[in-house]
Amino acid sequence: MFFHKKELQYHAKPDAPDPVFAKKLQEVLGGQYGEMSIFLQYLFQGWNTRGNEKYKDLLLDIGTEEIGHVEMLATMIARLLEGAPVYEQEKAASDPVIGAILGGMNPQHAIVTGLGAAPKDSMGFPWNGNYIIASGNLLADFRANLNAESQGRLQVARLYSLTDDKGVKDMLSFLIARDTMHQNQWIASIRDLESKEGVIVPSTVPPEWEATEFSHTLYNNSEGEESSQLPWVGQTAPDGHQFKYEQPKAFGERPILKPAPPQAHDSLPGEDKK
Amino acid sequence: MFFHKKELQYHAKPDAPDPVFAKKLQEVLGGQYGEMSIFLQYLFQGWNTRGNEKYKDLLLDIGTEEIGHVEMLATMIARLLEGAPVYEQEKAASDPVIGAILGGMNPQHAIVTGLGAAPKDSMGFPWNGNYIIASGNLLADFRANLNAESQGRLQVARLYSLTDDKGVKDMLSFLIARDTMHQNQWIASIRDLESKEGVIVPSTVPPEWEATEFSHTLYNNSEGEESSQLPWVGQTAPDGHQFKYEQPKAFGERPILKPAPPQAHDSLPGEDKK
Amino acid sequence: MFFHKKELQYHAKPDAPDPVFAKKLQEVLGGQYGEMSIFLQYLFQGWNTRGNEKYKDLLLDIGTEEIGHVEMLATMIARLLEGAPVYEQEKAASDPVIGAILGGMNPQHAIVTGLGAAPKDSMGFPWNGNYIIASGNLLADFRANLNAESQGRLQVARLYSLTDDKGVKDMLSFLIARDTMHQNQWIASIRDLESKEGVIVPSTVPPEWEATEFSHTLYNNSEGEESSQLPWVGQTAPDGHQFKYEQPKAFGERPILKPAPPQAHDSLPGEDKK
Amino acid sequence: MFFHKKELQYHAKPDAPDPVFAKKLQEVLGGQYGEMSIFLQYLFQGWNTRGNEKYKDLLLDIGTEEIGHVEMLATMIARLLEGAPVYEQEKAASDPVIGAILGGMNPQHAIVTGLGAAPKDSMGFPWNGNYIIASGNLLADFRANLNAESQGRLQVARLYSLTDDKGVKDMLSFLIARDTMHQNQWIASIRDLESKEGVIVPSTVPPEWEATEFSHTLYNNSEGEESSQLPWVGQTAPDGHQFKYEQPKAFGERPILKPAPPQAHDSLPGEDKK
Amino acid sequence: MFFHKKELQYHAKPDAPDPVFAKKLQEVLGGQYGEMSIFLQYLFQGWNTRGNEKYKDLLLDIGTEEIGHVEMLATMIARLLEGAPVYEQEKAASDPVIGAILGGMNPQHAIVTGLGAAPKDSMGFPWNGNYIIASGNLLADFRANLNAESQGRLQVARLYSLTDDKGVKDMLSFLIARDTMHQNQWIASIRDLESKEGVIVPSTVPPEWEATEFSHTLYNNSEGEESSQLPWVGQTAPDGHQFKYEQPKAFGERPILKPAPPQAHDSLPGEDKK
Amino acid sequence: MFFHKKELQYHAKPDAPDPVFAKKLQEVLGGQYGEMSIFLQYLFQGWNTRGNEKYKDLLLDIGTEEIGHVEMLATMIARLLEGAPVYEQEKAASDPVIGAILGGMNPQHAIVTGLGAAPKDSMGFPWNGNYIIASGNLLADFRANLNAESQGRLQVARLYSLTDDKGVKDMLSFLIARDTMHQNQWIASIRDLESKEGVIVPSTVPPEWEATEFSHTLYNNSEGEESSQLPWVGQTAPDGHQFKYEQPKAFGERPILKPAPPQAHDSLPGEDKK
Repeated sequence: MFFHKKELQYHAKPDAPDPVFAKKLQEVLGGQYGEMSIFLQYLFQGWNTRGNEKYKDLLLDIGTEEIGHVEMLATMIARLLEGAPVYEQEKAASDPVIGAILGGMNPQHAIVTGLGAAPKDSMGFPWNGNYIIASGNLLADFRANLNAESQGRLQVARLYSLTDDKGVKDMLSFLIARDTMHQNQWIASIRDLESKEGVIVPSTVPPEWEATEFSHTLYNNSEGEESSQLPWVGQTAPDGHQFKYEQPKAFGERPILKPAPPQAHDSLPGEDKK
Repeated sequence: MFFHKKELQYHAKPDAPDPVFAKKLQEVLGGQYGEMSIFLQYLFQGWNTRGNEKYKDLLLDIGTEEIGHVEMLATMIARLLEGAPVYEQEKAASDPVIGAILGGMNPQHAIVTGLGAAPKDSMGFPWNGNYIIASGNLLADFRANLNAESQGRLQVARLYSLTDDKGVKDMLSFLIARDTMHQNQWIASIRDLESKEGVIVPSTVPPEWEATEFSHTLYNNSEGEESSQLPWVGQTAPDGHQFKYEQPKAFGERPILKPAPPQAHDSLPGEDKK
Repeated sequence: MFFHKKELQYHAKPDAPDPVFAKKLQEVLGGQYGEMSIFLQYLFQGWNTRGNEKYKDLLLDIGTEEIGHVEMLATMIARLLEGAPVYEQEKAASDPVIGAILGGMNPQHAIVTGLGAAPKDSMGFPWNGNYIIASGNLLADFRANLNAESQGRLQVARLYSLTDDKGVKDMLSFLIARDTMHQNQWIASIRDLESKEGVIVPSTVPPEWEATEFSHTLYNNSEGEESSQLPWVGQTAPDGHQFKYEQPKAFGERPILKPAPPQAHDSLPGEDKK
Repeated sequence: MFFHKKELQYHAKPDAPDPVFAKKLQEVLGGQYGEMSIFLQYLFQGWNTRGNEKYKDLLLDIGTEEIGHVEMLATMIARLLEGAPVYEQEKAASDPVIGAILGGMNPQHAIVTGLGAAPKDSMGFPWNGNYIIASGNLLADFRANLNAESQGRLQVARLYSLTDDKGVKDMLSFLIARDTMHQNQWIASIRDLESKEGVIVPSTVPPEWEATEFSHTLYNNSEGEESSQLPWVGQTAPDGHQFKYEQPKAFGERPILKPAPPQAHDSLPGEDKK
Repeated sequence: MFFHKKELQYHAKPDAPDPVFAKKLQEVLGGQYGEMSIFLQYLFQGWNTRGNEKYKDLLLDIGTEEIGHVEMLATMIARLLEGAPVYEQEKAASDPVIGAILGGMNPQHAIVTGLGAAPKDSMGFPWNGNYIIASGNLLADFRANLNAESQGRLQVARLYSLTDDKGVKDMLSFLIARDTMHQNQWIASIRDLESKEGVIVPSTVPPEWEATEFSHTLYNNSEGEESSQLPWVGQTAPDGHQFKYEQPKAFGERPILKPAPPQAHDSLPGEDKK
Repeated sequence: MFFHKKELQYHAKPDAPDPVFAKKLQEVLGGQYGEMSIFLQYLFQGWNTRGNEKYKDLLLDIGTEEIGHVEMLATMIARLLEGAPVYEQEKAASDPVIGAILGGMNPQHAIVTGLGAAPKDSMGFPWNGNYIIASGNLLADFRANLNAESQGRLQVARLYSLTDDKGVKDMLSFLIARDTMHQNQWIASIRDLESKEGVIVPSTVPPEWEATEFSHTLYNNSEGEESSQLPWVGQTAPDGHQFKYEQPKAFGERPILKPAPPQAHDSLPGEDKK
């Protein structure tokens, strides 16, 4: 179960209103790699963990912390929207700067949320449950988490260049730091699990389930052999076998499907029509 | 530009029809981590790559190969659907096995596609562009790719236990092998980039953008200290600094928002109402 | 079955073109609480009503009226888009006002609909069936309807401040009035049903299905006791019992999940890995 | 910021595995009116509240409590999935009961989550941010909340009849009770606000914005006058005016749109073509 | 504006309950090519039509008729769900037939709609506004309409084989007939417009906008020349020019993108890293 | 299986950066009728074709070619985004032109993709699998294809007017030409199939499945008889029968639904409540 404390984990106070930046900031709140994805991915992974109580605790630690990041972003967005002439149509007509604000902001911040944040990205697309994964396999999921923290820190770094507001930058510097921690943490956790299970997920596939002659070959399906010059090609692969580089080949046959039964009302085979 | 060869990359022929398994197999064709995600993620990453022509070539090699995996799965699904008594309602009434097939299969395979595959997952949810990422940062994206190949191989391994059909298992064994290769390849590529850029994405954030005092601390937001016993806690973090473990603390203030302007028609502040 | 009359229920004629406002107006046509939600929610509720022929008739009365509101909004949007220099790129280069229009409008109004309305919201997100509810329980659904009319009138009121166009304001004043009626009507209908069924939905849950010791307690899960000072805390609840205020407590146990079977290829329990 | 305690708010332990019921239970976790909708709606409303600190605290109290309900449901689903012969295809062939389980369960519970819960509904549709509203107007939003708790309790009551498992029923009885509390609480809060603001949302619309001659009329757009016999028709409306009942009439004109400019490449007007 | 008449356009009465068929029938109510798509596509096209008042009237005639088809389907679904032992879990345990019904039906019909229809397809995916098009170009849109009526009639014909219920088949025979009419009507309308505008949409593109040397060539991008044997290859194309058949060729260059600016935090070009 | 060649099918090089046009161009890459819809629709239709090997080859020819169109658009978008002052906030403050660019562009091009294309439309809505159809009936699907090429060419023609960039216009002129070819080709293919099967899809419905008395009547559901003056009304329909024009009539009864069982917790019938 959960508890809430009114104070924010970190400051979330802009120096000045900026409705256009409020729209952009929605990306890291409710976008594909926003904080909603982060906290819900960690909580679902934690709730679904079987055994591994230490990692379950880790997931619940961080997942719970990250709800507070959504809170900070929601607060920042609400403040970026307050004090701007958002509804002042008459001023907008005579003042092109106000006109530009009214044109460049997210209209839902004016019409739907009444100057508040929404669980959506910077283009108004709502957050959805297919952004996250809790697969039951911790090594697979920690790789998902490392990716999420990498994309997240990248997006925050780009937002940092899109504003001059010192208060906003202060909050972003905190998010950048936490994403550094979380990248460090998932790398360390991945190394821990890989040292026990090996690097290929899932580690439990019996060899007879795998057509191992295809497990280490890079096929050159795009004309030109630049990829063959990558430093690891021809070297030992992370799982201990040897990487190969080959031209692609068809191992299967040309697929000819049987006609459908009449009740499918598919097209009849061409031959029958003549 | 692209070219097609009619032969399949590998065999895709079931021993017998099985409409219920056809429904399940849709997951690795059009689900969150299905082959559509894989091929489109690699192609978009390849098309968006700036410089790094070797990695661009690698992405286009593998992205192009993977279109052929969608082709194999679509062919397999079409064959699992053919020859089964899918439309024979009268037989179903008297034969509970046929009844179970009609009940357990995806009705859209009968009604919408006429015994063909669809770009959807095993629950009928359509593939969508928010499943993939092409961020312009290769290290971030290769982590996304490693995750995708890990989740993908995990799902194929689970499907392997859900069928007894030797033809289906043969095709799955090929997919398992290719996912092994692709995990190997992304691990190798990640190590290559990390050796040049460092492990934290993006590597280009100036130190003054980051509140570094928060970059290495694990906060215990979930009661109980199991996570503190993880082997890497208290050790050197992957980026060379020291991991810390602390109780969470509020560094920010309680957020009090200003009232909205009258045109927002928000609720008036409570005080004003009394 | 349905019939159509060419005349609009009310005027829908702007004084002047305004493609940027056309974009905003899409919100109350095809947004979460737009008129499409309203009319389809009422029609589905009406079609699903069992018994209660008077309320079924009411739902079909209003649902049918509201199709005409979508018609008015679609007409208004088409007119706000006509006569503006939407496609005149050359003028835009030299005239910043035209440039701002081309930048601030919804590009799909130019590219996809050819100056017409679309079943989408102000950010281009399509209307979808999960916006509405027809649950079979009228009291529950009338509460959904009262909410929809409240959010809808709120959004129209906000749009009223975002334009100076007298023709647009005239149409909005009609929509505001109809939303007043519909709020009135659902409040009256709710009072009618509550007087017969009681206030808790559904009224038909037997007492032994409910852990009634938890049915009237407000738990203070967010630090600070401001909520305890709300006027109704400690008073008689609407269902006749007494409201209580308590600190939250865990009534359940710490959840420990069993390991998954090997075919799940989940991570193995931590102990087994050492 | 947030904190987590490992113990569940209430018991979540089924007597026996039941993968088919696990699929159904997803509805109240990740469906339109599931607990994810509830907790995120309350948190966003709380974060966006301006002034009204008591109600802000109430929203954060309940929103935080409800995260724990998602946790209980996720735990219950994980347990309903464990111990069942989910992956045992060979047994399924010979045992029709196992076959029915494999056919009737959600295949993603086997393939994607490895016997864990997902942020989706009972038909596999992911939770999304358009399920919720935080409008900035508390009276509007409390009506949304009352609706959500009404639909939620209705769905839990229906699920109660769909299982015989005593452990599941015990948990459902707790959820039913909490939904009783929350309906009581929102009714009390709505009465409080209505007593201060009046019943029509938003209360701040100036009379000259409203075409008041249309604010109290029920139009008979569906043939037959059953709705005219509703007890409140012809009575005083909740806002103090008189309800009227009338036959519908067109107050607007037939809409004739102007031709689009040539760059729209719309169809030319019919006359020009002849 | 719109009016409603209580009688259905045609009978919608099944001989017996069938919750599993109710699930399937949702496809033609709320699926990609269900009646919701049809009626909303025609209404939006009608509302957006500029000039061409006869076709505008046609679109509004048929769009209005089709709302009544949704009404018939909703009624049929509600009746297929009534009288079946949907909630009788105890009977299900001992009676495998009831068990199969509870397993094969759409759980939302039991939990969410209380035995009513929903605006969703047979897999529970909600109808959405991106299913339809109203482009402003009538010839383009009539082709969309002809496709929709073709897919729709195909799906109804397939459903016809999936039931033995005479009442259901009676209603389907009416829908099949109306779809025949609507295919006839759109073919006739398309021929009318093509005779005036020519066959290529839009007819208004000036020749200098088109690289006409590529306007009549079929490229053989899939190995094998079966397509060259189609009867129309080498003949006169519908627009009066000659079809050609050629091997594909790259007319463009290899795309080399410039590096991104540092603020993008993209990967640095490979050369710079060494 | 598939192969890739680095050279583009046609040039994709703008004369100058234009981030605002990059946003618009996304429509024909990842929108409802963008090139992703085209190529995936053709490939799925090709993979699902049973018999008709010539048309299967045609679908795979064109589907494969069209992947290259996505490639050209992705390249063009990446180039329209490079070299513009996308991240230069400080310049934007003092330079209104830069400010307008930052306000009018798609923020995800700056934040998410790092100056690359995304599989989304011009309003940021992701491409999804419900945009396409592969029904198994070729005549139905070729009508879908003709529609898609018509809408596609229409959108490209509109985009042509929205830019002055000669490099962009050059690429658009190629896409216009290819869409001309593909319209020609589907018209020819449709004529071929119609000559063999007849014009009504599916051609295989037995007459006794159809209530033929309703198969040729246009009902006047929208007041006014403009539609009766269309040239084909009263003439012979494309399938050889006679078109009729009639006033609409209810052939069905008023639907009265039975009460739900108590476990549905629907509202009780009105009579019982009094």
